[in-house]
Amino acid sequence: MDTMQAIIKAQPGPGFESTRTVVPAPGPRDVLVKVKATSICGTDVHIYKWDRWSQGRIKPPLIVGHEFTGEISAVGEQVRPDEPQVGDYISAESHIVCGTCQQCKLGRAHICPNTRIIGVDIDGCYAEYVSIPVENAWKNPPDMPVQVASLQENFGNAVHTVSEVDVRAKTVLVTGCGPAGLMAIPVARAFGAETIVATDLSPYRLDLAQKAGADLAIDPTAVDFFKRAQDAVRGKGFDVLIEMSGASSALKQGLGLLKAGGEASLLGLAPGTLNDFDLNNLVIMKGVTVHGIAGRRLWQTWYQMRALIASGAVDLRPIITHEFPLSRWHEAVETMASGRSGKIVMYPGE
Amino acid sequence: MDTMQAIIKAQPGPGFESTRTVVPAPGPRDVLVKVKATSICGTDVHIYKWDRWSQGRIKPPLIVGHEFTGEISAVGEQVRPDEPQVGDYISAESHIVCGTCQQCKLGRAHICPNTRIIGVDIDGCYAEYVSIPVENAWKNPPDMPVQVASLQENFGNAVHTVSEVDVRAKTVLVTGCGPAGLMAIPVARAFGAETIVATDLSPYRLDLAQKAGADLAIDPTAVDFFKRAQDAVRGKGFDVLIEMSGASSALKQGLGLLKAGGEASLLGLAPGTLNDFDLNNLVIMKGVTVHGIAGRRLWQTWYQMRALIASGAVDLRPIITHEFPLSRWHEAVETMASGRSGKIVMYPGE
Amino acid sequence: MDTMQAIIKAQPGPGFESTRTVVPAPGPRDVLVKVKATSICGTDVHIYKWDRWSQGRIKPPLIVGHEFTGEISAVGEQVRPDEPQVGDYISAESHIVCGTCQQCKLGRAHICPNTRIIGVDIDGCYAEYVSIPVENAWKNPPDMPVQVASLQENFGNAVHTVSEVDVRAKTVLVTGCGPAGLMAIPVARAFGAETIVATDLSPYRLDLAQKAGADLAIDPTAVDFFKRAQDAVRGKGFDVLIEMSGASSALKQGLGLLKAGGEASLLGLAPGTLNDFDLNNLVIMKGVTVHGIAGRRLWQTWYQMRALIASGAVDLRPIITHEFPLSRWHEAVETMASGRSGKIVMYPGE
Amino acid sequence: MDTMQAIIKAQPGPGFESTRTVVPAPGPRDVLVKVKATSICGTDVHIYKWDRWSQGRIKPPLIVGHEFTGEISAVGEQVRPDEPQVGDYISAESHIVCGTCQQCKLGRAHICPNTRIIGVDIDGCYAEYVSIPVENAWKNPPDMPVQVASLQENFGNAVHTVSEVDVRAKTVLVTGCGPAGLMAIPVARAFGAETIVATDLSPYRLDLAQKAGADLAIDPTAVDFFKRAQDAVRGKGFDVLIEMSGASSALKQGLGLLKAGGEASLLGLAPGTLNDFDLNNLVIMKGVTVHGIAGRRLWQTWYQMRALIASGAVDLRPIITHEFPLSRWHEAVETMASGRSGKIVMYPGE
Repeated sequence: MDTMQAIIKAQPGPGFESTRTVVPAPGPRDVLVKVKATSICGTDVHIYKWDRWSQGRIKPPLIVGHEFTGEISAVGEQVRPDEPQVGDYISAESHIVCGTCQQCKLGRAHICPNTRIIGVDIDGCYAEYVSIPVENAWKNPPDMPVQVASLQENFGNAVHTVSEVDVRAKTVLVTGCGPAGLMAIPVARAFGAETIVATDLSPYRLDLAQKAGADLAIDPTAVDFFKRAQDAVRGKGFDVLIEMSGASSALKQGLGLLKAGGEASLLGLAPGTLNDFDLNNLVIMKGVTVHGIAGRRLWQTWYQMRALIASGAVDLRPIITHEFPLSRWHEAVETMASGRSGKIVMYPGE
Repeated sequence: MDTMQAIIKAQPGPGFESTRTVVPAPGPRDVLVKVKATSICGTDVHIYKWDRWSQGRIKPPLIVGHEFTGEISAVGEQVRPDEPQVGDYISAESHIVCGTCQQCKLGRAHICPNTRIIGVDIDGCYAEYVSIPVENAWKNPPDMPVQVASLQENFGNAVHTVSEVDVRAKTVLVTGCGPAGLMAIPVARAFGAETIVATDLSPYRLDLAQKAGADLAIDPTAVDFFKRAQDAVRGKGFDVLIEMSGASSALKQGLGLLKAGGEASLLGLAPGTLNDFDLNNLVIMKGVTVHGIAGRRLWQTWYQMRALIASGAVDLRPIITHEFPLSRWHEAVETMASGRSGKIVMYPGE
Repeated sequence: MDTMQAIIKAQPGPGFESTRTVVPAPGPRDVLVKVKATSICGTDVHIYKWDRWSQGRIKPPLIVGHEFTGEISAVGEQVRPDEPQVGDYISAESHIVCGTCQQCKLGRAHICPNTRIIGVDIDGCYAEYVSIPVENAWKNPPDMPVQVASLQENFGNAVHTVSEVDVRAKTVLVTGCGPAGLMAIPVARAFGAETIVATDLSPYRLDLAQKAGADLAIDPTAVDFFKRAQDAVRGKGFDVLIEMSGASSALKQGLGLLKAGGEASLLGLAPGTLNDFDLNNLVIMKGVTVHGIAGRRLWQTWYQMRALIASGAVDLRPIITHEFPLSRWHEAVETMASGRSGKIVMYPGE
Repeated sequence: MDTMQAIIKAQPGPGFESTRTVVPAPGPRDVLVKVKATSICGTDVHIYKWDRWSQGRIKPPLIVGHEFTGEISAVGEQVRPDEPQVGDYISAESHIVCGTCQQCKLGRAHICPNTRIIGVDIDGCYAEYVSIPVENAWKNPPDMPVQVASLQENFGNAVHTVSEVDVRAKTVLVTGCGPAGLMAIPVARAFGAETIVATDLSPYRLDLAQKAGADLAIDPTAVDFFKRAQDAVRGKGFDVLIEMSGASSALKQGLGLLKAGGEASLLGLAPGTLNDFDLNNLVIMKGVTVHGIAGRRLWQTWYQMRALIASGAVDLRPIITHEFPLSRWHEAVETMASGRSGKIVMYPGE
């Protein structure tokens, strides 16, 4: 029986471990994927640190990781000929949905209540091989670089967040320049935003935001913030808020800067509940619409990603700041945890 | 110079006064309206009680009241022939907008930042005559009863709130059965709601909600509330929340009962800020969309109201619980303030 | 091996034949349904008459019929526990879609280019049993009458056609009062139409339209048609056109009566191409939006149907004009072909 | 009394004449504009040639021209301080709407049935001065070049046509590369189109289309057209059709190349009616949505234009192929009529 390198949460508590384990055998409707690249998500860092959410959700031992790309090396016996086959170059939607609930049947599988997540609820992709349901495999164009292909799962969050609002010829405020926020910037540009202002407390991330195409990347606590943000939009406020930080201060500031009748799209999750929130003035009397965003639309978001990348409208490579062999996973995860990175890609077998 | 009966806020502090004052002369773009019926809004009660908002906004002396209907008795010299004329039977949009700002030019005059409100910023309609800009006059069908015609300003809030969401073949929760909530019930029914559950703490209002057409009208603090609400929608939760109460408990409960992917439309204004609000679970991860609602869409909402009333799809008369001559304004306002009423209509000159 | 009664197209040419044939064995992902009721669609009449479309599409021998309801009597070995099971009372979506093409993956399976249709491309339901893919089975509430449950496939066309446009507080013109047109009338009413005018050349159908809830049902060639139609909508024209006839005269007349900025939803298929069509004045300069409608949205339309029927908002029973045992299929099909019927339901085994 | 140079349609029949006439006096709600640049529209060529439409609509003598920019030199006495003032640099919406009809009150003034057009129904802008209603004046940013500012009226048609559909990450076919088609190309790009294929019979215009940013600009009658068009979109067909030619062959070909579920936006007006149009296969069974486009949305389209130009997302200058002093109007109009031009700008007083 073949074995492989894998990074696992071995038991409850902080940290990951490197191990050798058996290559999984795909179930009847599964495909086995040889991983070519895998990238680190903020969620992986939460599991690494063993935060409260992880303690309630993760059942060790578990191979972690859910962003990846690779080549199909075997398929289950019920995989049909019109579905992905051995040799196909694929990325994976990490959300495994039931397909039979009302949400799935209404085309809203991204909010299926029965969702299980690769690398969270079942074994993940920080390994040489991973087995996933064939329905979760997404074929990539052959010329897509593997590091870009791996990023798509997370890129899809950004594309989904931006595509729920109309940014065409609009002024856009992006609050939070972690990976999802950074990726939202070129998407907003590609979809027609007039002016994009991005905020973050970290100078490192503001520098990446500038490179990602923001017209202004600025610390929201700077004394001249309000003046510079308003100057960037000719004193008119913002039409659209893209909230990627999860910080309640960012949400309040962003909604405060929004024009009446504006739209907000919220992806960032807060560490706790929201307090002292002026719903009357920030949302109701302004006639603002707020969209909560979860996951990626299946499969609209993936088609959008493919087009954005293939046409060159979005170049994700400047957002990748570090690359490691999977054997250096410890350094990679610690770098991600430091906040001084964009996306980090790891390569098994190097 | 002709004089008329009028109800005024004479000076800062609680209460109104009855007075005689000069009939206003319409400006060049105004129409003078002989008031046939006027109805009481919750805002009028706030001004009567002299709450904090009133203290900051109202500049006495001021004729109060902004919901009314009547007949045009004179027009200013710049009113054009294709605009309302002497003898026309009209109701009034209470929001006087600038017409030149970006919001107005984008067709979003209901959130014009330069809005002035009849009976709040300029003299209102608790009087025998009121002068308003011709742009604010809306011609009624001749067969519309005056008590119904007067209610339209407030009815428009309900129509606007419901029409921003898609209730067709959906399950709908209406939280708050004050006048706007009560009026939202038949609107949701007329626009295709499958099941409507309404909540309020007051048995008096729950009774009105039942009469207004709710499938279930129930106290949200009742021990069997959750079971009965879920039974009403076959255990599936609600597709749509119509929040009319301004109570943070109602907002939280309503969003909690909403299905993932649902929509919420919020009209109710809270007395303070929102606290301990679980934005992650109530909005973001559920993929919920929240619409803040202000005023009435000019003039889409008014056309909708006309159609809803003319076709008989909505009958507002069961929601009118009291009628008074304007001379009994004190009793009328106190009744409204008691919470034991639906809409209250007053008639000048009786 | 069990046999059953079935109505088949035995060879190319007009007519159907009654036969006995083997009860089908369900495939691994199929369910076998004992048919309780089946209804006749216009398409069945086309196949019966062996029109040009049928000659190109139908490969005899074939069991015909695609509208039905029944009880699952057996399931294939790959049917999962969260899918319909033996004993379930179901209706069927007649379009078998591939699930893997771009349309399917975008949630637009109703226009899947690989669609195969029950009773057209594979054996249908004019029989005691029919085998269908489990994905096509839709569970009905137990209290839904079988004749109503059978109609849903066709009712879904009407619901889809109406739901693509916004009829809330709008004036609606329905052209063509065959079964789909008749069913569109109560749907438009349930979804908030202010006024509904229906047209057809047949007095028999106009009578059914009146019973179905039209405010005015009228022959569009009547000398006073224009006056009466305009009177019904106070001289303002129509906001929405629901075209169900396929007649080019109806399309032209309907678009001509539409207000600028109106919407048209087209389900009716014409026997040939469109000629002498004034696209400039009927569509472009009027700013009209035209929606082509195919099939039923999977599964939004089915959820809408369930809600419309369960809430009592739509009662399909007045539209059912004839009921027959399946053994009298010849009389049933001839009655449908005569044009002097609404929906016709047949019952196997009686 | 001051006089000015003006180009007029002096009497029924082909041609224009140069004349001197009195500078108009602005009415109470008008502004007098000193014209800095004016551009030629296809409609002006129709009036010049005195086609059938012109014969029915134009009442000579009339100063022609409706695309222009200039500086306000006087205002009527009822122009308010919050409206455009003397010295302002403006362009003009050419459609003078009533403001009181249902369309205007619903925010659809672009299809107001009472529309009068500058240079068509009232004196136009091929002159040193033009008087227009203050409501039609649109303030430009001071740094907008005058030749670009003049083009906006026509540019707005292109922006409106593209903005009615969702081109984000979509494949787009633009049929017809006259000025409006040419301008639609960079708009579709700015709003997120993945791939843009443009068609025209004229090699001159195809060359301009390529410069305007089309991925492929091609003669639709070329033998390899279908192959090259499909290659450009990886064999998948088009998501969106932007029809700018008015040619029925283009409409049929474009709808034929559209994917099921696609959207078409039609601006081009045909010389006659549409014949032999396969509505069943091109629209209905494909589930296609068709949008008729008229004018510009007031004022959404103008805000979009401002943003597109200010951000540099669209550069209209490559589309301007000729510039003339107004005194050489004859050469300018003949050049436009030849079909061998993009936009042509003329300057009064040079």
